[in-house]
Amino acid sequence: MPIVVQKYGGSSLADAESIKRVARRIAETKKAGNDVVVAVSAMGDSTDDLLDLAQEVSPVPPPRELDMLMTAGERISMALVAMAISDLGFSARSFTGSQAGVITDGVHGKAKIIDVTPGRITEALAKGHIVIVAGFQGVSQGTKEITTLGRGGTDTTAVALAAALRADVCEIYTDVDGVFTADPRIVPSARKLDRISNEEMLELAASGSKVLHLRSVEYARRFDIPIHVRSSFSHKEGTIVTDHPAPEGPEGDAVEAPIIAGVAHDRSEAKVTVVGVPDRTGMAAKIFEAVTLAQINIDMIVQNVSATATGLTDISFTLPKTDGTAAVEALQRVQADVGFSAVQFDDQIGKLSLVGAGMRSNPGVSATFFKALADAGVNIEMISTSEIRISVITRGDLLDDAVRAVHTAFGLDSSEGEAVVYGGTGR
Amino acid sequence: MPIVVQKYGGSSLADAESIKRVARRIAETKKAGNDVVVAVSAMGDSTDDLLDLAQEVSPVPPPRELDMLMTAGERISMALVAMAISDLGFSARSFTGSQAGVITDGVHGKAKIIDVTPGRITEALAKGHIVIVAGFQGVSQGTKEITTLGRGGTDTTAVALAAALRADVCEIYTDVDGVFTADPRIVPSARKLDRISNEEMLELAASGSKVLHLRSVEYARRFDIPIHVRSSFSHKEGTIVTDHPAPEGPEGDAVEAPIIAGVAHDRSEAKVTVVGVPDRTGMAAKIFEAVTLAQINIDMIVQNVSATATGLTDISFTLPKTDGTAAVEALQRVQADVGFSAVQFDDQIGKLSLVGAGMRSNPGVSATFFKALADAGVNIEMISTSEIRISVITRGDLLDDAVRAVHTAFGLDSSEGEAVVYGGTGR
Repeated sequence: MPIVVQKYGGSSLADAESIKRVARRIAETKKAGNDVVVAVSAMGDSTDDLLDLAQEVSPVPPPRELDMLMTAGERISMALVAMAISDLGFSARSFTGSQAGVITDGVHGKAKIIDVTPGRITEALAKGHIVIVAGFQGVSQGTKEITTLGRGGTDTTAVALAAALRADVCEIYTDVDGVFTADPRIVPSARKLDRISNEEMLELAASGSKVLHLRSVEYARRFDIPIHVRSSFSHKEGTIVTDHPAPEGPEGDAVEAPIIAGVAHDRSEAKVTVVGVPDRTGMAAKIFEAVTLAQINIDMIVQNVSATATGLTDISFTLPKTDGTAAVEALQRVQADVGFSAVQFDDQIGKLSLVGAGMRSNPGVSATFFKALADAGVNIEMISTSEIRISVITRGDLLDDAVRAVHTAFGLDSSEGEAVVYGGTGR
Repeated sequence: MPIVVQKYGGSSLADAESIKRVARRIAETKKAGNDVVVAVSAMGDSTDDLLDLAQEVSPVPPPRELDMLMTAGERISMALVAMAISDLGFSARSFTGSQAGVITDGVHGKAKIIDVTPGRITEALAKGHIVIVAGFQGVSQGTKEITTLGRGGTDTTAVALAAALRADVCEIYTDVDGVFTADPRIVPSARKLDRISNEEMLELAASGSKVLHLRSVEYARRFDIPIHVRSSFSHKEGTIVTDHPAPEGPEGDAVEAPIIAGVAHDRSEAKVTVVGVPDRTGMAAKIFEAVTLAQINIDMIVQNVSATATGLTDISFTLPKTDGTAAVEALQRVQADVGFSAVQFDDQIGKLSLVGAGMRSNPGVSATFFKALADAGVNIEMISTSEIRISVITRGDLLDDAVRAVHTAFGLDSSEGEAVVYGGTGR
């Protein structure tokens, strides 16, 4: 019997009515002749409610206890989903992360899954039960402590279960219809993608697209699990994330993959500029060592050409806004040692990323990209690229305009029918 | 190091402020030089909130999933208590029932503890941690399913932990100062008892006193664990439940135990009367078999003397009000077979029980008891007795008057200073 793994997020499980709707959907999948395993998140905003409670009790709660607290949310939603399913006449069994065999490392708050031993799940499936698993959580190897995988971790739970059970597909249900060429709230003409490669999805997720959690895509790529991102509010087909070629079209010709997958944006970053750094070997290293010691993840880095007259240079980097204070403090501690003149902090920036596997073989992409931004009057402050991505930092208040301009320039708007295809055979 | 087990109920953990107060209390106990293990209930009304959610999703939720749901409540409170303790500079570790080694049978919703294997608790104590355990829950032997012990189960968790850890005392914190000679809301002059025997406490708990859960007292008696019932809102000494004699008084003479421990009342029962039962062998058996098959617990039974002229008799019994409908339906199903004429249901009754180990050697007790009720104008509908208890059924609206009359007649009112002591050496 085919195994389907499904994931439902908090917005699909906001209240009793939503839970009943999700239960009907799960029952349909079972009735269609599948073994069904479901990973669920906590209901609606309940995770935030628990965090608020923790804050009231302790400003800096111990991570072990915070994990113990947070995992209660999925326990509640999974039991309710199982009840709603049994109310429809199907039998369901819920399992905590620990019971489901989700083994992690011991890093509370952002544990990594290192193994899945789904013995109880396969047993329950063999008995004809629908299986509901608490997402976002696991149990640490050896020490058997309850851990959580961090925000978005339920996506990863679902993919990890799909890999361990050799499922045919992992369906990620969310409140949008799939992966879009841009955020439809900013670009109303954004188009839903039918297919996207893991590589492109990874770049989009890393660039601010919130539809799939980065780690879940990495996991899916490693174990070659096709992900189907779709809406829990409709029955439309969503977006398939896979590296396998699309099935042949009706006339037998393979559907050409578009060059550009989409435009992602990110408002969660800030920029730090270290001004007047002596242009000597090892100074940049000292600066980034200080920031790294403060456990801060740096994204983009730019070092200006040294003004030879002064022998001084400026170094800018971006980082999560929430790490801003920590980074500035860490830098001030090394200011005397490194000898720079000032630290500037700027949280009014935005990041725009263009992602597409076709960039590799289409040198025209970057010209079109920068021309679109220039035409829209958007100034570029920093640039970084990968083989299949170009990212730029702009002023935050220009970000929406920039996204729309780039989206249109690459023919991604749905009104234009087809995406621009550079070179190649086209269609 | 002495081991103290403490239990805090939902009313002591209603919100963040209450949790912080409980944490200070726990920290004090640790600072006084004890190893501390704490069993906690779910916060305030959160158990009822979860039950409401379950009802919205499924009118008859599967017991396994209901247990999974309910256990989330203690998970939340124990993590918050552990956080609040660590915020005071002490280290705390919380454990679920399963992690704490609370092994039960597999009866969901009212599982019985069959073993406690507290390996992780003793390990954590050895490392100097304060241990917080989720009350009310365990894991079933063999099948490893999450179970709950039923309402009041956290008392039992605490006593079972105390027994397994060979604790010096099990402190049950509640919102009253201890065990009283009667419910102070009905009898304002009720006195707090300094000591009470397990046997008397069992009878009080079985007769409607809510201060301790019946099963926890049975457990404490079996393992000879002294229970200290006290308030989480004050530092007053509460009531010690133990079979060991009281320590000697300042002049070397043992404190005489009072004859009467207290007066309990219960409004949760109803009365069923089966009218016109043919007075033949086996008819009563058929009636109670029908009721037992419906999983109903019967309390008191009265069969009237048969009216020889008709050859018919009436049989009355009491049962939990909530089981009333099920009992009446079960009886109607056997009406034709047994041949009785009608079933009457009466939920306007009250039960009053007088409990005291001194009854055994003091024949005057029942005379005083019935005279007090007669003087108060309270009619008695049913009577049942044990060696150390007399219970009567009265009209529900007379119950408060009856409790006060009996309380006064036995000199239990605090204004009178001392309890009446029949015979013996007295004081």
